[in-house]
Amino acid sequence: MKQQITFITLGVTDLNASIDFYENKFGWKRSEMSSGDIVFYELNGISLALYPLDELAKDATVDAAGSGFKGFTVAHNTRSEEEVDSLIENLREKGVKIVKEPQKVFWGGYSSYIADPDGNLWEIAFNPFLKIDE
Amino acid sequence: MKQQITFITLGVTDLNASIDFYENKFGWKRSEMSSGDIVFYELNGISLALYPLDELAKDATVDAAGSGFKGFTVAHNTRSEEEVDSLIENLREKGVKIVKEPQKVFWGGYSSYIADPDGNLWEIAFNPFLKIDE
Repeated sequence: MKQQITFITLGVTDLNASIDFYENKFGWKRSEMSSGDIVFYELNGISLALYPLDELAKDATVDAAGSGFKGFTVAHNTRSEEEVDSLIENLREKGVKIVKEPQKVFWGGYSSYIADPDGNLWEIAFNPFLKIDE
Repeated sequence: MKQQITFITLGVTDLNASIDFYENKFGWKRSEMSSGDIVFYELNGISLALYPLDELAKDATVDAAGSGFKGFTVAHNTRSEEEVDSLIENLREKGVKIVKEPQKVFWGGYSSYIADPDGNLWEIAFNPFLKIDE
């Protein structure tokens, strides 16, 4: 099995609120594959999909009920500590919930967390040991 | 903010069980960045990280408690329906929980779901409209 992921799909409770978040807070542009029912953002070789939570559970044939910590995070890495600060300030001004303020962390990086409308956690971080593709 | 994800981190309840799953069932190889506390798999331009659930919650400064559907899925796409079938048979023989048997789905693809030890859902699917990078 190839070491490959093609999609991360977030099950969202309010598709329009999530679209507002990813397009107006993050400033991302949806891909042409998107429809009124599912929205895709083409990232670096994978796509992020937004799909109604109930539909996603139904597709996977699981119960949609769930609460609390979702047990996963997604990371967006920057090229400097300053870029973390400016991204967080920009998101704060747009009303995004800052879960963890940018700070030095034990592994040598500089990290913060924000939440999307469904509480999905994005780590915005600078990792001095990580090479980021342009 | 660039349309970029660098990591997906799964908060796992038993790191060794998850390592067994990703290395012995999926057959993936960990990256050199891995340590005894956190394990990374380099995928197509992003990395999957396995990290203890409590530590991940602590890092994000959130409560670790949670239950039920996690509200996200990850997809691994293949190049044919037959490849979905053979992957699923291979995983079944290794004792992996098949959540949804491979089947034709409404959007024109052929899809199945499996669960990792923490119930993280992987869709194994063929999408005739999707180009997969080699």
